[in-house]
Amino acid sequence: MTETQGSSPSRRSLIGWGGAGLALGAAAAGGAVAMTRTGDDVDPAAAEAGAAVGFHGSVQAGIATPVQDRLHFAAFDVTTTDRAEFVQLLKDWTEAARRMTAGKAVGEGAYGGLAEAPPDDTGEALGLKPSRLTLTVGFGPSLFKKLDLADRRPDALVDLPTFAGDALDAARSNGDLCVQACADDPQVAVHAIRNLARIGMGKVVIRWSQLGFGKTSSTTPDAQTPRNLMGFKDGTRNIAGTETDRLKKFVWVGEKDGPDWMVGGSYLVARRIRMHIETWDRTSLQEQEDIFGRDKGEGAPVGKAKERDEPFLKAMKPDAHVRLAHPDSNHGATILRRGYSFTDGTDGLGRLEAGLFFLAYQRDVREGFVRVQRNLASDALNEYIQHVGSAVFAVPPGVRDKDDWWGRTLFSEEA
Amino acid sequence: MTETQGSSPSRRSLIGWGGAGLALGAAAAGGAVAMTRTGDDVDPAAAEAGAAVGFHGSVQAGIATPVQDRLHFAAFDVTTTDRAEFVQLLKDWTEAARRMTAGKAVGEGAYGGLAEAPPDDTGEALGLKPSRLTLTVGFGPSLFKKLDLADRRPDALVDLPTFAGDALDAARSNGDLCVQACADDPQVAVHAIRNLARIGMGKVVIRWSQLGFGKTSSTTPDAQTPRNLMGFKDGTRNIAGTETDRLKKFVWVGEKDGPDWMVGGSYLVARRIRMHIETWDRTSLQEQEDIFGRDKGEGAPVGKAKERDEPFLKAMKPDAHVRLAHPDSNHGATILRRGYSFTDGTDGLGRLEAGLFFLAYQRDVREGFVRVQRNLASDALNEYIQHVGSAVFAVPPGVRDKDDWWGRTLFSEEA
Repeated sequence: MTETQGSSPSRRSLIGWGGAGLALGAAAAGGAVAMTRTGDDVDPAAAEAGAAVGFHGSVQAGIATPVQDRLHFAAFDVTTTDRAEFVQLLKDWTEAARRMTAGKAVGEGAYGGLAEAPPDDTGEALGLKPSRLTLTVGFGPSLFKKLDLADRRPDALVDLPTFAGDALDAARSNGDLCVQACADDPQVAVHAIRNLARIGMGKVVIRWSQLGFGKTSSTTPDAQTPRNLMGFKDGTRNIAGTETDRLKKFVWVGEKDGPDWMVGGSYLVARRIRMHIETWDRTSLQEQEDIFGRDKGEGAPVGKAKERDEPFLKAMKPDAHVRLAHPDSNHGATILRRGYSFTDGTDGLGRLEAGLFFLAYQRDVREGFVRVQRNLASDALNEYIQHVGSAVFAVPPGVRDKDDWWGRTLFSEEA
Repeated sequence: MTETQGSSPSRRSLIGWGGAGLALGAAAAGGAVAMTRTGDDVDPAAAEAGAAVGFHGSVQAGIATPVQDRLHFAAFDVTTTDRAEFVQLLKDWTEAARRMTAGKAVGEGAYGGLAEAPPDDTGEALGLKPSRLTLTVGFGPSLFKKLDLADRRPDALVDLPTFAGDALDAARSNGDLCVQACADDPQVAVHAIRNLARIGMGKVVIRWSQLGFGKTSSTTPDAQTPRNLMGFKDGTRNIAGTETDRLKKFVWVGEKDGPDWMVGGSYLVARRIRMHIETWDRTSLQEQEDIFGRDKGEGAPVGKAKERDEPFLKAMKPDAHVRLAHPDSNHGATILRRGYSFTDGTDGLGRLEAGLFFLAYQRDVREGFVRVQRNLASDALNEYIQHVGSAVFAVPPGVRDKDDWWGRTLFSEEA
């Protein structure tokens, strides 16, 4: 079915469940925070049809939502210190995101306004399906300082410590805020980031951005586990979008965690991990499998037959990646991963500039990524990878209904 | 249907028509050069199923083949001057390409060889469909010099002149040879380039590479015309893969054109065109439409109602892009376009590093791209774009059967 609204000339079709998402979101707003997204997010038939993912809800889409095929991620710096102006931008962004995730053009569209004015929408997504686009916003530590909100910065949003082997490029790190755009069609994701940047002109500027061409983790364990650029299945034991209990325990900020404005939110760690794939490709199969602690074909843990068999960590080498990253080696620490493979041309030495853009959501950065990454200091994989970009963001709760906007719980008492 | 061969553990499925392509290609080899690809290339049902495109034929796949959704393009420099060694590489590449385009792993696969040796295949495409992968090889002007083949360099393979507005980056230009990988799944295209680079280690090195996330031209006019990042439909009047006469006239090198080794081949011009999209997005709808000479919504030429209505050039502004690029303004010059949109992060000024990776095939570079690009010196679009990379390649005829290899007609008398 096709839905058009107002004077929008968009031919992108809104398939499915958007309205249901809105209604459930509004219902949740009246009572306890519902920690799962609405049903449209996990309907495989709708996903196949290029459907829309509901935008409204108590938590933001794009976290527990089944991972889409492509990513465009952008970190922005805020160029205004006027909090009211920034709040207005968040409201404008919310309205644009509400339309784009539903498969509609922004505002009057690419050719719906005055001929004498620039179009409201840049147009390259016209005719494309909603493609399960999700837009997820986060606030970086520097934003709290810049907008004089230091007292509202969550304790769990720590500045990441320096980890062994870090080779971070400032031009690919940090940012006052971020937008994660995921979609099954990359043109839809790129269009969304571009239009938000356009709307933000004069208030925010893109600091860095990253395209991801293939997902490396899934939040739908029934589906085929994707492979990373090292050729191994990745994310076998990732948290599924349907695992309400694990999401609540490890991903969503709860009422007891605080601060209040973050309840229903999460914390995002983004790391650009360069892979030295040419070196990896000269490594023997046995060594590759020893390093991961799984076999390359099936993905089974050492000594086991099937991908999803319970790993026996002591059978793995002490520096095997899976062993060191496993919750049992990290006091139970578990993160929800949403990373994507990237290939950004070639470095000056003829090597592919390729790797993993790691995205992980967690209830507390200190208990999640920091704990695991510290334990990976002795990871055998470190010989083949290097962390070259890093950022951390507080991802606020979802936009509950048509009157709500991104970041309201943080800014509403102030703006 | 699924086909596996030999000891390959690949689970990528070969759907459809691969065998037919081989048979027709072999038949064509015995008589006159058949100037169209085999039928599998234009079967929409097969395309939807993630099928394989036949590798064998009198012309290479990836030119008249219906344009796939994603691109990974690499230009290589040859690091050996030993012609026999280079010929062996072309043979090895051909065998790998034959397998990968059929959806199979390279050699013994990612876990089919000896545990003590590096795997023959890097593994990240295991479990993925063939995704209509095509691999198309071309030879740059510098190759003829490097391998002492200057007397075999085609006259039609000219060094491109400097055009008005060129701002070429040497690090994104030229190359001894190129491989164009097109597929509906980007991971399949990236995997193919990576594995060819791996096989070529010590003989060739990647000079530059380019990922394209969305096609901007179609060779199937029945389908929806894709939009470029300026939001306009692109390639409305492009040559269709089924237009045998126009392909013969404008794309394929014929027997009278010479040299003999290029009959059934074509010439490829690759240009990285940066778009100043932030400036474009501040331009009024009227001005955007004047610049192109088409309306933004429907894509109809000025004064006409429908996208495919015949343009009346004199109704357009004298510097309108469509008017200046039209064959009637260029002594009939017509090129087959296969370009892709790209977004490679952000420049140092917060602007998206985005644009069009322009790929065009023609029977003679002098009569094709050079003629049109010269006429575009006064193009109103030039205010919003800049050519920052450039390369030209002689694309040899197709690999006819299982005993044939890329470039045989050029090298066979010598090697």
